[in-house]
Amino acid sequence: MVPHLTTALSGPLLELEKRFLDQATEIERWMRAQWQDHLPPFYGSTDLRNSGFKLAPVDLNLFPGGFNNLNDAFMPLCVQAAQAAIERMCPDARELLLIPENHTRNQFYLQNVAKLVSVLELTGLDVRIGSLLPEINAPTTLELANGSSLTLEPLERRGGRIGLAGFEPCAVLLNNDLSGGVPPILKGLDDQWLIPPLHAGWHARRKSVHAAAYDRVAREFAELIGIDPWRINPEFGVCGQINFQERTGEECLADQVDGLLRRIRDKYREYGITETPFVVVKADAGTYGMGVMTVRDASEVRGLNRRQRNKMSVVKEGLEVHEVIIQEGVHTFETVDDAVAEPVVYMIDHYVVGGFYRVHTERARDENLNAPGMHFKPLAFETCCSLPDCRQGPDAAPNRFYAYGVVARLALLAASVEIEETAPAEAELVA
Amino acid sequence: MVPHLTTALSGPLLELEKRFLDQATEIERWMRAQWQDHLPPFYGSTDLRNSGFKLAPVDLNLFPGGFNNLNDAFMPLCVQAAQAAIERMCPDARELLLIPENHTRNQFYLQNVAKLVSVLELTGLDVRIGSLLPEINAPTTLELANGSSLTLEPLERRGGRIGLAGFEPCAVLLNNDLSGGVPPILKGLDDQWLIPPLHAGWHARRKSVHAAAYDRVAREFAELIGIDPWRINPEFGVCGQINFQERTGEECLADQVDGLLRRIRDKYREYGITETPFVVVKADAGTYGMGVMTVRDASEVRGLNRRQRNKMSVVKEGLEVHEVIIQEGVHTFETVDDAVAEPVVYMIDHYVVGGFYRVHTERARDENLNAPGMHFKPLAFETCCSLPDCRQGPDAAPNRFYAYGVVARLALLAASVEIEETAPAEAELVA
Repeated sequence: MVPHLTTALSGPLLELEKRFLDQATEIERWMRAQWQDHLPPFYGSTDLRNSGFKLAPVDLNLFPGGFNNLNDAFMPLCVQAAQAAIERMCPDARELLLIPENHTRNQFYLQNVAKLVSVLELTGLDVRIGSLLPEINAPTTLELANGSSLTLEPLERRGGRIGLAGFEPCAVLLNNDLSGGVPPILKGLDDQWLIPPLHAGWHARRKSVHAAAYDRVAREFAELIGIDPWRINPEFGVCGQINFQERTGEECLADQVDGLLRRIRDKYREYGITETPFVVVKADAGTYGMGVMTVRDASEVRGLNRRQRNKMSVVKEGLEVHEVIIQEGVHTFETVDDAVAEPVVYMIDHYVVGGFYRVHTERARDENLNAPGMHFKPLAFETCCSLPDCRQGPDAAPNRFYAYGVVARLALLAASVEIEETAPAEAELVA
Repeated sequence: MVPHLTTALSGPLLELEKRFLDQATEIERWMRAQWQDHLPPFYGSTDLRNSGFKLAPVDLNLFPGGFNNLNDAFMPLCVQAAQAAIERMCPDARELLLIPENHTRNQFYLQNVAKLVSVLELTGLDVRIGSLLPEINAPTTLELANGSSLTLEPLERRGGRIGLAGFEPCAVLLNNDLSGGVPPILKGLDDQWLIPPLHAGWHARRKSVHAAAYDRVAREFAELIGIDPWRINPEFGVCGQINFQERTGEECLADQVDGLLRRIRDKYREYGITETPFVVVKADAGTYGMGVMTVRDASEVRGLNRRQRNKMSVVKEGLEVHEVIIQEGVHTFETVDDAVAEPVVYMIDHYVVGGFYRVHTERARDENLNAPGMHFKPLAFETCCSLPDCRQGPDAAPNRFYAYGVVARLALLAASVEIEETAPAEAELVA
């Protein structure tokens, strides 16, 4: 089952999909050249929005947590891509330590970890799981709902290396986004591959830095295939001095919202789009859909009530929000049985390995579908994202998924650029 | 549908499959290390035999011609692997010239070429097809039975480069095995990637050189996982001075056959195998199953009649046979509806991308299933070869196919070693 695109204005998107289709060879060649110049992240996932007139990424996650939601038919693609990633990053690795998030009661997340372990083992690695949780002080086996199990073990620091009892891995893979900062036990490691690098964690990443990198990538790509970059690129602005509790910075925020809404309105007019423009205000650091607000008018951010201010003030791990990004909202016009569906694309190395839809019945098409307490039903992509079929229409499943894979890879490429540009200097690393 | 293994003696193979399964991580790690040391061929296919007590490759083709027989479900694996191969071999390539065999009336082969073209295009290459046939003196479009079409164009030589009218490719991919020797138009090319290298053609390759390389690879691998290398390795001998027409060298051949049969009989006794041993006599150079003979007793090669001698004297392109390899025969005990089924595994770069069975109703289990005029029904592998599943029995489809993929990659690795070791010195290349 492939979600239905329910919008009167699918024409422009069909045009976009058609252009991707017609220029697939050119696109793939350009991608190949980009990956010669930029090191792909080990893995990543991106949330896309498809409004019929715009297809754009709204988030790029460098610690993907939903491998369990992918279509099992594409497991071979995951294994093959992971083999390529390991060859690229740490070809001599024999043992790999996986450090997951601290969600020991989230069955879905644990199944994601189990899936990752099985993929990594098939690349020829002994994989064990080290937990950052202080209560894991001995090997602890968790039984999973799907019949498998996971053993979490306490991390041990030995000089410049980290490991487990009887386990000296040469590679460490983080599936923990470091929202709460870099734990001391992970600081100053040397002589070990740490993937992704620490500065890719949410303690250091800024959505606005990614958006700026994406902006450049999208412009270059749009020029290549001759489209308006706005078709694939959400506009954005930043406010750096916000304190929601003390109500400072509200004017900056309102001005940014206003300016951005005006620019979007202009674009809607240019393309004859009659939808109501909206923007999304998010904490510039952090993830998990906390500290997110949908705004249709600048006045909405001027008169925030206490509940709204509380909601915006903190993100995961209790971090206070002082910087926000204001991002052009992209409507989700894909639906499954009247429920809103948002595509998520998964990548390992520079390969698209699958994806799924977050299907949510209780939310509107301009709301955030990744919020705390939000229960989505994953709907795995039926076909892969690498086989456009020009004998079919531009919106046939293989072609829509190909378009998703292209835009997702643009976001991944932006993340590569971002990681390169934000890498600490050698001197800082040593200190 | 997965072919049924019809042998009383499947125990040893189950043991072998179980060992592959139990040591999958170790095996994949070893493979990864091997591919650090050896450049994988761009592509390859290998014919396997599964006798229940032995699982071994009997042929390794560096110009695979059956991509059309693979399961469409694994096309994404082909594309992903081809992307990796292009990145490894010629990352900057924009245009690729494909040179196929001269079979313009073989619909199956042409569909193979069409499949290859579509895979290569999805790696971001403009692909055009250059024909070695003298009668192709203008672009010629062939309509294929499956509704697609192919355009063959005349090759043009310009200095050290080859191309087509208006097409200056930086890479040339051969799907022509050069059985008839290297055509002058391909000699002395420089400044262009030629894949595979010329000396991988059947004008230069010797089955015995490959067998010797495989022997070393199989020994090392067998030691790694603790098995008798004979389980995966057909023994062989060589006779270098044969002239079937003039009946010279017959004694050498008979002696080799006799010695080899004796060694096989010893092995059969050791393992309690009651089957009748046999050997296969083949031209050491060349392919296409010509010049092949099944022999159960040395006396059979002493009294060859005229018809048999004629059959053994020439291979493809009319080449005379003077060197033969005598290879241990491996029974095929896989059947589909009582027809003999022989697995063929396909690889791109060092990745297994699928496979199929040659199913033949008119041949016995100790006969060559790849003979001229031989009509096999391809049966695509149902599952991929990279996902062993230890929750299932060692002979469950994913595990049997995993075992096939492992042995096939050993043969591919042997081909890499063979290509390295037979590479002409720089001086010869220039001359």
